[in-house]
Amino acid sequence: MEESELQLWRSIGIKMAEQVGKAVSPLVGKKEADENIKMGADGTPSKLIDIVAEDEVIGVLESTSRPVTLISEEIGILNIGQSSDENLNEYDLNSNSKSESSDKQIIFVVDPLDGTTNAVKRIPIYGISIAIAEYIPGPEKPSLNDVKMGFVKNFATGELYEAIKGRGAFLNGEKVYPSLENELNRSSMGAFIYGTKFSQVNNVCKMIRRMRILGSVAIELSYVSNSTYDAFMDLRGNLRVVDVAAAKLIVEEAGGIITDQEGNDLNGLLNVSARTSIIAAGNKKLHQQIMKNMEVI
Amino acid sequence: MEESELQLWRSIGIKMAEQVGKAVSPLVGKKEADENIKMGADGTPSKLIDIVAEDEVIGVLESTSRPVTLISEEIGILNIGQSSDENLNEYDLNSNSKSESSDKQIIFVVDPLDGTTNAVKRIPIYGISIAIAEYIPGPEKPSLNDVKMGFVKNFATGELYEAIKGRGAFLNGEKVYPSLENELNRSSMGAFIYGTKFSQVNNVCKMIRRMRILGSVAIELSYVSNSTYDAFMDLRGNLRVVDVAAAKLIVEEAGGIITDQEGNDLNGLLNVSARTSIIAAGNKKLHQQIMKNMEVI
Repeated sequence: MEESELQLWRSIGIKMAEQVGKAVSPLVGKKEADENIKMGADGTPSKLIDIVAEDEVIGVLESTSRPVTLISEEIGILNIGQSSDENLNEYDLNSNSKSESSDKQIIFVVDPLDGTTNAVKRIPIYGISIAIAEYIPGPEKPSLNDVKMGFVKNFATGELYEAIKGRGAFLNGEKVYPSLENELNRSSMGAFIYGTKFSQVNNVCKMIRRMRILGSVAIELSYVSNSTYDAFMDLRGNLRVVDVAAAKLIVEEAGGIITDQEGNDLNGLLNVSARTSIIAAGNKKLHQQIMKNMEVI
Repeated sequence: MEESELQLWRSIGIKMAEQVGKAVSPLVGKKEADENIKMGADGTPSKLIDIVAEDEVIGVLESTSRPVTLISEEIGILNIGQSSDENLNEYDLNSNSKSESSDKQIIFVVDPLDGTTNAVKRIPIYGISIAIAEYIPGPEKPSLNDVKMGFVKNFATGELYEAIKGRGAFLNGEKVYPSLENELNRSSMGAFIYGTKFSQVNNVCKMIRRMRILGSVAIELSYVSNSTYDAFMDLRGNLRVVDVAAAKLIVEEAGGIITDQEGNDLNGLLNVSARTSIIAAGNKKLHQQIMKNMEVI
């Protein structure tokens, strides 16, 4: 991507985070925010506050007057800035049916509001995840590997994590580094473990110094990038790939390690149905310690 | 306690919360905040940010020109506003050695900074816990039963939970009510379970809808008072009684249930060494469901 293109999309990403934060703010802590309005593209019900957030995302993209594809939890896939008969309901980004920019597509992979329950309850950990991918249509479908930029913003605190591929990761404009802590028994870890088989995580949970479950995977995964957490895991197995698309780049650009629970690279497809598990750590040794102490079942 | 007395101590409690918040604010997210300065009265090391918070607590109490006893994590017990030879290092609040107000003593039970690690890492869940007890010296030592007022403030958000015995519980001045949710599989629960025997909590963790570990027991226990959480448990067994003295009153005044893990009333002694476990819920049925699903080991 050319520098001018990059800066254009970066400014749109930052503007989106700002605008969505403003749009949801009157609903935070309100009962009506929690009302189920319709079913999302992934089959889970969408709450009013989620819809408001996603509508704002669409609004920001529509105002760019550039063709762009949005992948998002509630709406699935939406092509914006293209003639309406090309607004596809199905996932066919790699078909040749599009008129413009047949060589390159910009895909916004957005979780408009990660931590919806926190926002409804006014627990100050909720925000947006925005990944921007550049995809060249071909036999391969768009995947996490195509992500060029990531933004995660906590609306409650205003903290903005950001990464551009190859340029490091930043929090509020300052370069961040992951933790050097490499002993499990001195580590603080975000760990979504409820609903999983506890025998699997028993060892890690017994050894870990501190455990947190704040309720926003995008924000908590980003915490690995600047040593707020030494490590993070989500073993529920139903984590959407699109929800970690931004934070994965942020962790990797900072220098951290991120894999699935088998230790494989994450390279899921950019669609709302792809799911994954995550084990992330600030350094290789701590990642290995976590893997070693997971009971294989 | 007379109404004028009550209002006096209430205003001191609120002022204390405000002042300590201001005092720690420059240290939040800073490396130096995390430095171990000395050993606390309970045998754990005290960090700079904890010391700054406690010093401010002492300053506020000294400025009242009323005799008062402070019980706090770092300092243990401190008698303030009395002649210096009566500043006791040992726990003898129920001795008859004091010159003034031999019939009644005001005891401030304070955790100046609950969630120290969060404050150091700028995770927006940290604050103060202040319980104010009225104790009439006698054969019984001062206990949780003597607590007349409780304040819990999240410094990151400014949220102030408050209760006066017999008058209900309030968040930022508005009356709060605990959750009516009484099914475990629809409940959100704060659950400090790491470092415990997982077999004990396996059932609850499998059934629960949502689990959180935010890292501040005082704030998270207060969350039960206004339905932010449906329930809360801390099974680590090393929770200080003094750290929950305020939040316990807040939960009870709201109408919630709080016991130890055996289902017994909490009535620990007000000193820095007394420890407890906690199971709290918005209503009796949910509390029973949690108790029933705990595996006795």
